[in-house]
Amino acid sequence: MGFVDKLAGATARNRSLLCVGLDPDPARVPAPLRTRRDWVTRFHAGIIEATADLVCAYKPNLAFYEALGAEGWTALRATLALIPPDIPVLLDAKRGDIGSSAARYAAALFDELGCDAATVCPYMGYDAVEPFLAYRDRGVFVLVKTSNPGAADFQDLPVAWGETTRPLFAHVAETALGWNRHGNLGLVVGATQPAAFRVVRAIAPDVPLLVPGVGAQRGELETAVRAGRDRHGAGLLVAVSRAILYASSGTDWQEAARLAAQALRDTINTLREA
Amino acid sequence: MGFVDKLAGATARNRSLLCVGLDPDPARVPAPLRTRRDWVTRFHAGIIEATADLVCAYKPNLAFYEALGAEGWTALRATLALIPPDIPVLLDAKRGDIGSSAARYAAALFDELGCDAATVCPYMGYDAVEPFLAYRDRGVFVLVKTSNPGAADFQDLPVAWGETTRPLFAHVAETALGWNRHGNLGLVVGATQPAAFRVVRAIAPDVPLLVPGVGAQRGELETAVRAGRDRHGAGLLVAVSRAILYASSGTDWQEAARLAAQALRDTINTLREA
Repeated sequence: MGFVDKLAGATARNRSLLCVGLDPDPARVPAPLRTRRDWVTRFHAGIIEATADLVCAYKPNLAFYEALGAEGWTALRATLALIPPDIPVLLDAKRGDIGSSAARYAAALFDELGCDAATVCPYMGYDAVEPFLAYRDRGVFVLVKTSNPGAADFQDLPVAWGETTRPLFAHVAETALGWNRHGNLGLVVGATQPAAFRVVRAIAPDVPLLVPGVGAQRGELETAVRAGRDRHGAGLLVAVSRAILYASSGTDWQEAARLAAQALRDTINTLREA
Repeated sequence: MGFVDKLAGATARNRSLLCVGLDPDPARVPAPLRTRRDWVTRFHAGIIEATADLVCAYKPNLAFYEALGAEGWTALRATLALIPPDIPVLLDAKRGDIGSSAARYAAALFDELGCDAATVCPYMGYDAVEPFLAYRDRGVFVLVKTSNPGAADFQDLPVAWGETTRPLFAHVAETALGWNRHGNLGLVVGATQPAAFRVVRAIAPDVPLLVPGVGAQRGELETAVRAGRDRHGAGLLVAVSRAILYASSGTDWQEAARLAAQALRDTINTLREA
């Protein structure tokens, strides 16, 4: 099953637009797991068990696995094997390189790791993104307006456009939309960027948006869901990592993660149906 | 020793601005190695043996290792161990993420893999790059104008600048220069972009430039060296991968790689001294 159908299935079954990020941080892992050699896998097994009926997708962030070296890669593979096959896996990788290298990154994420979707960076243009989009049954989320403070440095720059200007991120969104021949494109818009949702939705009303920056990054969930949802009240993957994973560092970490995920899912549903 | 001194040492000792890219491609590896399980390590051992007195740096491209899965990571570590300690290793990774994730990527490349320098992507702004620059003894090469066709899609966009406009890549170069508090910044300018060298050198006369796109990508070596060199006829790392690695696919692959590297090094020296 392709990413689009898998996402639709999980969204409907779990009544959820919540995408749980898997960012294994040795400094924050719950105390009971801290001394275990296989803590990443044990931790994720617990998080997945606690949240698998509440999510539309899981989003492992490659940075956190790579920092753990060879063990991190083993743990990533073990984690991927734990995710129920009917829940899509979106790898947060933010890759981008010349065509021949991009093809190798796409092979790494989609063939080697077998993931359903990935984030990619648009700075290097069409041939950096196309090798990912060529996998028609996978989702490709292009960075447009990110949730971090540095997003303003370049993404907001005024690009000449006819007689006027528009921000770079709007130009990126429109250009990426033109690459969407197989209907497998998504865009990344940070929850901290309310104005960007209106701009991006005007350009791309039907494309799914991955929305990071909720929770630990104090994103504005309400504005993001209201301005970001599509005409069917869907088309969003609201990504939350730390606020769920590290909801408690004690023995109740699994229960706390479930409660946090449930509360977020329900809040998002209330907002999107309003 | 920090990256800057290590690079200066290798450049002087080998009279070289040639940076050999290590892109292990199973479809192109010389025939005599093709059936060996440890072909990546054997191949790189041969390339390093043949070129270590001709280069200023080696540049492994992570895309090619990641595509090989767990074996690729083992091979990358084995390859890094083969590079003489007085030759700097620049990891071509093009990473870029929000601050907390960028810090994990920097830890992966600089602590876990122990490399001397890395390429990073500027799209997400300051906090995506700063965690790399904070490693003062490592080099950080920010993508400015890349060598691929897609470089034109966004990097050339006219950004409003006072009464006039300038291309996005010029704005990126100037902004990145402002982040260079520790003197460990470099910029990436593709050999296929002669006009970009003049723009970037006007903004950043003294920063080292990593120049990909020579050889298999048919870059314009002559213009690149003439327009890209700094006032001392240096300040360049001319990256060549395929034209050296795959100079021959027969039993003479090592000799052919050496001859190709020698010819390139000497051509670059002739051009930069002219």
